Amino acid sequence: MEDDRIGLAHGNGGRFMRELIEEVFLRHLGHTGLDVQADAAPIALNGGEVLITTDGFTVQPLEFPGGDIGSLAVHGTVNDLAVSGAKPLYLTLNAFIEEGMEIATLDRIVRSLANAADAAGVRISAGDTKVLRRGEGGGLYLATTGVGVRLPGIVPSMQRIRTGDAILISGSVGDHGTAVMLAREQFGMRGDLHSDAASVLPLTRELMKLDGLRFMRDPTRGGIASVAHEIVRATGLGVRFNDSIPVRDPVRSVCEMLGFDPYYLACEGRVLAVIDSGQADRALAAWRALPSGRESALVGSIVDTPQRVVLETALGGERFIEELEDDPLPRIC
Amino acid sequence: MEDDRIGLAHGNGGRFMRELIEEVFLRHLGHTGLDVQADAAPIALNGGEVLITTDGFTVQPLEFPGGDIGSLAVHGTVNDLAVSGAKPLYLTLNAFIEEGMEIATLDRIVRSLANAADAAGVRISAGDTKVLRRGEGGGLYLATTGVGVRLPGIVPSMQRIRTGDAILISGSVGDHGTAVMLAREQFGMRGDLHSDAASVLPLTRELMKLDGLRFMRDPTRGGIASVAHEIVRATGLGVRFNDSIPVRDPVRSVCEMLGFDPYYLACEGRVLAVIDSGQADRALAAWRALPSGRESALVGSIVDTPQRVVLETALGGERFIEELEDDPLPRIC
Repeated sequence: MEDDRIGLAHGNGGRFMRELIEEVFLRHLGHTGLDVQADAAPIALNGGEVLITTDGFTVQPLEFPGGDIGSLAVHGTVNDLAVSGAKPLYLTLNAFIEEGMEIATLDRIVRSLANAADAAGVRISAGDTKVLRRGEGGGLYLATTGVGVRLPGIVPSMQRIRTGDAILISGSVGDHGTAVMLAREQFGMRGDLHSDAASVLPLTRELMKLDGLRFMRDPTRGGIASVAHEIVRATGLGVRFNDSIPVRDPVRSVCEMLGFDPYYLACEGRVLAVIDSGQADRALAAWRALPSGRESALVGSIVDTPQRVVLETALGGERFIEELEDDPLPRIC
Repeated sequence: MEDDRIGLAHGNGGRFMRELIEEVFLRHLGHTGLDVQADAAPIALNGGEVLITTDGFTVQPLEFPGGDIGSLAVHGTVNDLAVSGAKPLYLTLNAFIEEGMEIATLDRIVRSLANAADAAGVRISAGDTKVLRRGEGGGLYLATTGVGVRLPGIVPSMQRIRTGDAILISGSVGDHGTAVMLAREQFGMRGDLHSDAASVLPLTRELMKLDGLRFMRDPTRGGIASVAHEIVRATGLGVRFNDSIPVRDPVRSVCEMLGFDPYYLACEGRVLAVIDSGQADRALAAWRALPSGRESALVGSIVDTPQRVVLETALGGERFIEELEDDPLPRIC
């Protein structure tokens, strides 16, 4: 990768992306209050606080097992608000449509987007469309901005994380990344793979009832490994994963075959939560009572040292999980 | 253009775009409250009303005389709020960056965006970046969503427009569209052409003080001709332009040479306002006291019949201005 040009790794959720955001976007925009760490930013309106977040979507193929770019755009933005402890209320939608796109495909995607918005209880309040010349658009890109209000309870944040806290995940990891990759590359493998993309609001609502909740995140680009690295950087503490991280068999098989690590792959309907270890059992019980939380698990803890991300292996060993550098999967979200 | 695929004309602000939005986006999303006519949509938050708007930017070249895609993205979104009678407060930013883009160019554009935001008094609250594979991105696309609160005064809307109202324009038309086209096509013509892109908030603030104000719009895609057609469709009345619409000489020359009509070309820093004719002089005096309103003019009136857009010519004749169908200028905003 040339140093003076954008490479695919600038978009993967790892180190290059973080550096680009810090050195270009944060440098010029930081003084206006931009917070590049938070999923959703608080803004003052009408004498109260509102949360706002924005997200771009470039997934390829546009339709994949378990979803499409339309439902994904709703879930991605709703979820950024949900893990911030908010109730999503409104979305805006930008569509960049490539010349030559089939209108029937666009119609299916917009319908799917509308259904996802209805299911999540959000209204699409404003929209804009632009048409891109053939060859300049990759089919369809979407951008959505979401606005919501805080749910009662604590304000979840990385700053609340303490040594000894438990780390929970609401379901299996890597499903979305693997499903999209297989749908795109058409390796001839199919099996039981489909995206986990869904609204996580039912999951986050439950945890917001617990005062021991510290932090929640939907592990999208860069997967749970990248969330863990963000925690280490923000807290100066360490993340220690145990060998209970749920990975479905077909995901594990595909990853082994192709040399991917599922911990770096995007989820689009999971929550990674950090919580006071004394409330971990209550949290898991609440999650397991929900359809989307049946496979939730306690997958690790926050430790003093090392200030690294460590994975305990089934055989009793351990290995470091490094920050993502190369791009494993472009256009996954 | 094939009927079942997206064509460039679906993005030009004219009839094909309107039909696409109505038949695909409004059909699926209309029940959630999406208003495709308004520049900015009211949403209820914290017991009060907030205005929200969103816009995508694909201008090519990314930098042009008088601006760049970064400042344009700020002005475009700030202006949609301003003409709705709001004070813009917050923006979110999505960047779709093509692999291979020079980081130095991106840096200049983000700096320009930050300067435009500072000048307009808005904060960039949240952002997201995606990297597109080489050949799938056209360099850089931006999407911005803006949030603001209503200024005191009337709520400007097409529904307030009455027969006999005056139509004002705050400055010359077609500057942005012509400047971008020349910068892109490199006809060898340069001269004095530069984009008019700017925040129109100083202009709209003045008109909000007048209770005879009916409606304001920044005539971007499709130009003042397309705004006039929207008025005719929404009110069932007619728009009659006189021969005083300001067009700069270099814009007129380029349009004559290339066969474009300046009334269809995008402005990015002008306001078209409809106002009670008894307050037109006060409005013009207020505008002309501002640097951005010195060339403002009374350019027409609202009439009962015909329910068309009519232009009086300098020689005493008249001609119909039709709704835009073909695409004159792709990637102009």
